[in-house]
Order: sequence, then C-alpha cells, then structure tokens
Amino acid sequence: MNQEPQKLHTLAVLVDNAAGVLSQVSRLFSRKGYNIDSLAVGPTDDPSVSRITIEITTDDGRARLLCNQLRKQIPVHSVTDLTERPSLRRSLMLVKVRVPSSAAQTKILEVASVFRASVVDMNPQCLTLAVIGDDEKAEGLQRMLEEFGILELARTGTVALERGLGTISDQTKMKGEFDYGKNLL
Amino acid sequence: MNQEPQKLHTLAVLVDNAAGVLSQVSRLFSRKGYNIDSLAVGPTDDPSVSRITIEITTDDGRARLLCNQLRKQIPVHSVTDLTERPSLRRSLMLVKVRVPSSAAQTKILEVASVFRASVVDMNPQCLTLAVIGDDEKAEGLQRMLEEFGILELARTGTVALERGLGTISDQTKMKGEFDYGKNLL
Repeated sequence: MNQEPQKLHTLAVLVDNAAGVLSQVSRLFSRKGYNIDSLAVGPTDDPSVSRITIEITTDDGRARLLCNQLRKQIPVHSVTDLTERPSLRRSLMLVKVRVPSSAAQTKILEVASVFRASVVDMNPQCLTLAVIGDDEKAEGLQRMLEEFGILELARTGTVALERGLGTISDQTKMKGEFDYGKNLL
Repeated sequence: MNQEPQKLHTLAVLVDNAAGVLSQVSRLFSRKGYNIDSLAVGPTDDPSVSRITIEITTDDGRARLLCNQLRKQIPVHSVTDLTERPSLRRSLMLVKVRVPSSAAQTKILEVASVFRASVVDMNPQCLTLAVIGDDEKAEGLQRMLEEFGILELARTGTVALERGLGTISDQTKMKGEFDYGKNLL
C-alpha cells in the first residue's frame, strides 16, 4: 500500500448559507472516518454564502479525494486546499486564568504583553485574555499560563486566506469544470 | 400559539474529541430545521475534549428544548446557554482589501488602526487585516473597507466565555442531573 506522509490540510469551502449545509458537509467527513482537527463557519461579504474552513490530518491523496467529494455536493460552490499555496492561517483563543496573588497578576500581564494578547476581562480573582495566532502561539501562551491555573479555554477553528491577490473565489470555476467532467461519465 | 421573541442564543458545548461527534451535533440542528448563525470547534486545555460554540437565532423556549436534546447525546459532556449570563463573545475576521493607490494604503492603515486591526500581509496591490471583535465591530470594519474593494473575507465562528470565575465545566453536573431525570421516566 502506498504510504504517503500525513500532514495537516487546510480546506477552504464556500457553501450556500442555509439550514442543513453544515450537517451535510460534516456527515461526509464522519462517513469517511476523518476526524476534523478544527472547523470554522462564518459569513462572507456575500450574505448568501458562508465559508467553512476545515483542518484535517491526512495524506495528499486522500485530501484530493475529499476535495473532489466536497465539490460534488450541491450547496458547495468551491473547494480549495490552501496547504499547497502560501497562506495566512489564524485562529482566536480566549483563555481565563486564575490570579492567585497581585504578584501573579503582574506576571500574567507581562506574558500577555509578550504574546500580544489583549485583556478582555479583569477582576481580582481572574483575567481573561484574547490572542490571535497559529497553533504554536496558542499552545505557547497556554503553557506559560498553566502555572497560575487555567480556568477555561476556548479556541475558534482556524481561518485561512491565500497570501497576495489570489482568492478561493478564483477557484469557483473548478466546480464548473468538475460538473462538466461528471456529465461526460 | 405562543409567540416568544427571537434572539441570538450562544450555546457552549463540551464534547468528546472524536470522529463523527460534530456530524452528530450538527445533524440534530438540521433535523430540527435550525439554521446555525455561526459555529466554532476547537481544542480545550483537555486534549480529549473539544468545545463547540454555536450561535442560533430562536426563542428562549426552543433554545431550552435544544439544550436538553443536546444533553441527551452520548458524546456531549455539558451544554450552557451563555445568553443568560454576562459573557464575553469574540470572533476573528481576516479580510483582504485591494490597495488601488498609495493614498488608499494610508487610508486603509488609518482605518485598521482605529479598529485595532493588525496587518498580517502586505504587498503593493493588497493588504490583509486580522481583527478580533463582535459582529458589530466586524461589520463596521467591513463597511469602512468596501470602498477600496474587498477581495476576500473569512470569519471564524464566535467563541464565548462567562465573565468572572464561573466556567461551563461547573455545569457538567447538569448532565448527570438530566440523566437521573431520564431514568425516572
């Protein structure tokens, strides 16, 4: 069997903004046994279109297969595997950390400043920080805060844009090409 | 029929980090005909647990019903409707904007500074900004950038934490209570 190396793939998918679309897309992943590392769904500048960003760990062959299967779904407008292009990947982490003493507060604020995290809530017992970054940055901050006691932590899925002028909408025609191919079968 | 007012509900759900869980949860929403406004799935400080934040527009009664249905799902550890508590809601937006002239670049950087957006990619033709905020801030920035030409825009779902010391893990026992109630039926 061909043993291609596994790596993190970041797929950007434009879909109809409608009930049931996310369920349809996530069913495709679970049916094939893929565990989703992260997922983000949000609006775009077109209110009728949502953008789903999915991160999965798999090999290149299976990622290509999955992209093709996604393109076959009716509510899917376009699919791009951004792993193959220079791209910006960012997620947001909110983390609530215990403040055991006023000396600890100073230390936590120092760490926040180094990681360029902003303080979004503060009281004498705890601080809540927000930070934009990739996985490594989020995990680095998390490690620095562990000694104080992390009360709660929430991370969005990753969103990703191609660097430079290119956009995934440029790929929309690929769905058209795909449909054309399907008609030939 | 009882006409309760519709409003945005923010549900924070702790689930097993396993293949198929997201599909199971999103199927519940689509089966009941709820359109999800935003969704974020990401890791927590416990690698075996993921946190799903879901925003839906519905009335209080249907939101309560949905929370109870979510609690019945095996991989669900806890469900909290953060709408009823003081909470912090944040999402991340990446937006790529055309730079038609060097005067426009100055203007765009001014807007970025006012919205406390950071520049994550820059070239002579376009700028990519990252900004943390709620829906109003994201939409405000979007409107200010429209005149230059938005090339591409991606938003994560919202993540939310309760203000102060409380956490949604404090609610985990609610699932126990619910199961107990179910046994009585």
